[in-house]
Amino acid sequence: MVDRVYNFSPGPGTLPVEVLQQASKDVLNFKETGIGLIEMSHRSKEFMAVADTTESMLRELMEIPDNYKVLFLQGGASSQFFMIPMNLLGDGKKATYLNTGTWSKKAIKEARLFGDIEVAFSSEEQTFNRVPTQDEYSVDSASEYLYFVSNNTIYGTQFSSFPETDKVLISDMSSDILSRKIDVSKFGLIFAGAQKNMGPAGVTIVIIREDLLDKTPKNTPTMLTYKTHADKGSMFNTPPCFPIYVVGEVLKWLKKKGGIEAIEQINIEKAGLLYDCIDGTEYYRGHAEKASRSLMNISFNLPNADLEAKFIAEATEVGLNGLKGHRSIGGCRASIYNAFPREGVVKLVEFMKKFEADNPA
Amino acid sequence: MVDRVYNFSPGPGTLPVEVLQQASKDVLNFKETGIGLIEMSHRSKEFMAVADTTESMLRELMEIPDNYKVLFLQGGASSQFFMIPMNLLGDGKKATYLNTGTWSKKAIKEARLFGDIEVAFSSEEQTFNRVPTQDEYSVDSASEYLYFVSNNTIYGTQFSSFPETDKVLISDMSSDILSRKIDVSKFGLIFAGAQKNMGPAGVTIVIIREDLLDKTPKNTPTMLTYKTHADKGSMFNTPPCFPIYVVGEVLKWLKKKGGIEAIEQINIEKAGLLYDCIDGTEYYRGHAEKASRSLMNISFNLPNADLEAKFIAEATEVGLNGLKGHRSIGGCRASIYNAFPREGVVKLVEFMKKFEADNPA
Repeated sequence: MVDRVYNFSPGPGTLPVEVLQQASKDVLNFKETGIGLIEMSHRSKEFMAVADTTESMLRELMEIPDNYKVLFLQGGASSQFFMIPMNLLGDGKKATYLNTGTWSKKAIKEARLFGDIEVAFSSEEQTFNRVPTQDEYSVDSASEYLYFVSNNTIYGTQFSSFPETDKVLISDMSSDILSRKIDVSKFGLIFAGAQKNMGPAGVTIVIIREDLLDKTPKNTPTMLTYKTHADKGSMFNTPPCFPIYVVGEVLKWLKKKGGIEAIEQINIEKAGLLYDCIDGTEYYRGHAEKASRSLMNISFNLPNADLEAKFIAEATEVGLNGLKGHRSIGGCRASIYNAFPREGVVKLVEFMKKFEADNPA
Repeated sequence: MVDRVYNFSPGPGTLPVEVLQQASKDVLNFKETGIGLIEMSHRSKEFMAVADTTESMLRELMEIPDNYKVLFLQGGASSQFFMIPMNLLGDGKKATYLNTGTWSKKAIKEARLFGDIEVAFSSEEQTFNRVPTQDEYSVDSASEYLYFVSNNTIYGTQFSSFPETDKVLISDMSSDILSRKIDVSKFGLIFAGAQKNMGPAGVTIVIIREDLLDKTPKNTPTMLTYKTHADKGSMFNTPPCFPIYVVGEVLKWLKKKGGIEAIEQINIEKAGLLYDCIDGTEYYRGHAEKASRSLMNISFNLPNADLEAKFIAEATEVGLNGLKGHRSIGGCRASIYNAFPREGVVKLVEFMKKFEADNPA
């Protein structure tokens, strides 16, 4: 076995070591075919089976209803910021967005190219330290959809319960998909870049209710039309084969762990260890308001920037990597996605206590 | 070593086994960092070095002038079909296309959404069995650019010399980039999906002259604007890290082989072995006219479809995989990209001769 470090990277994020070991074999010689997975035709029966398995595992684990399509697209979550309004809006059409961080802000900017965008809530003035409760915003009756980001990677906030609305509900779940049980039938569209909870960078999952496939305006480029990919099982053109394969392996790993309900309990416990540490002292200060705290990304500060820099440097030395906060907010951030092991969280908490004792403010 | 088969797949295509072996190690533990390449932050110094190496190797091998940007994008070559006209055309603007196969036809369809498209040559009525000579078409003086596909994967045709024009020259080189020496300075934009001559599926290389970055119409989505990616070194959002890494490894392999001039000689010799076999008998018939023959994809027919099916099945049994022609043309196709070994071509020629002797028409 390799000497693994604890990788707190916000994304691409740590993956299960069993998955890496399997990928290491399959890259070179997939299932003893004499062809490596990454040089195999996407139309071969072997790769078609890989893609089918990835989709069916996702459907099983998330209990995705039959009237939803699962698409494997390229371009990152950032491409969904324009693809959603490009497909669902058009001249004179309206949509409502909740502005709870960098990613919703970018999505709003792109959406404004395609329709009339209402921002019904924003925590930007509070440095995005919270997400709204249901009574803090209302949705215009003319809106085609309500868009929100379920977990904000940078600010460490998360919707603990989802917006209730009679509109089509759309969510960017890039950083918390598969981390907790959700009811897909409440959503019109869910999307997520793979590189946090699902696999490597290079594939974005879109789960879309079938009736939304018919809303795309004429003259939309073929590759940007959801229906193109839905009709061809994401094989209209060559898909990102290797990322799709790894997502499938991660899903198999998740199923073996007991599925989403089991991982959700582990995630609650892992985050609890860290928040208990933060709450037990004045030395560490969590960025997010308590009711908005994320189970995936814990953003926190030390008494000053010098101590933060020292903290990150010394943590790296003892094999706790990737704890530097995002440049837009500074401080520290521990990203503890599904595949991040509990032992790493325990080790971080021990380190935090020792660092506080050794480095009084 | 694994028991490799000869993989004639048109793409994703065979890769050098040394590259697969290196990737197999790095996926699990990149350079002894204790983190696998596919779970590593794209902003880490380790991955930034990978991306830098890939770009600088490509610049060195292709002798790309300094006034060109190299972009690593997602969405496949198919996304360039609309991105090029979306960025370079607009109301009332015109462009000229040469229609020499399935991929140019698809590109023309998308371009028509963004401007006035002139098709100056088409070999569609001859089942795309040839590419034009310079005197077979002219380019409207109002055209913004002239677009052509340098090698047609399906029909096995290739431009042996490139169009001469005073317009911006744009080429889809997906299936022959790096296979022969070209003068990049003659082009405004070159693009190529990686999965034939460069690496795995999931990354598309765009080489664009800097002055073209300023032509994009306002209100183009951020992710679809070339300048976005040019200004951020293809790190505006999370790039397809693993495909970029593998491309870098393939480029290192190519340099060790002697670079593009050396591989071009090998490619000429490899294709020559196959064309000599085809020309030495009436049994096999090449699809392309001789002057338009591709060095990358050799599409050919046997006396009838039953013999073709038998040929493909028996070839597969002896470890010659992926010889089935594209569904739009039928017959057989041998794709022999840079990484396809000469020994495999020799083995195919031997098999063809034996098959002909054993199975008279």
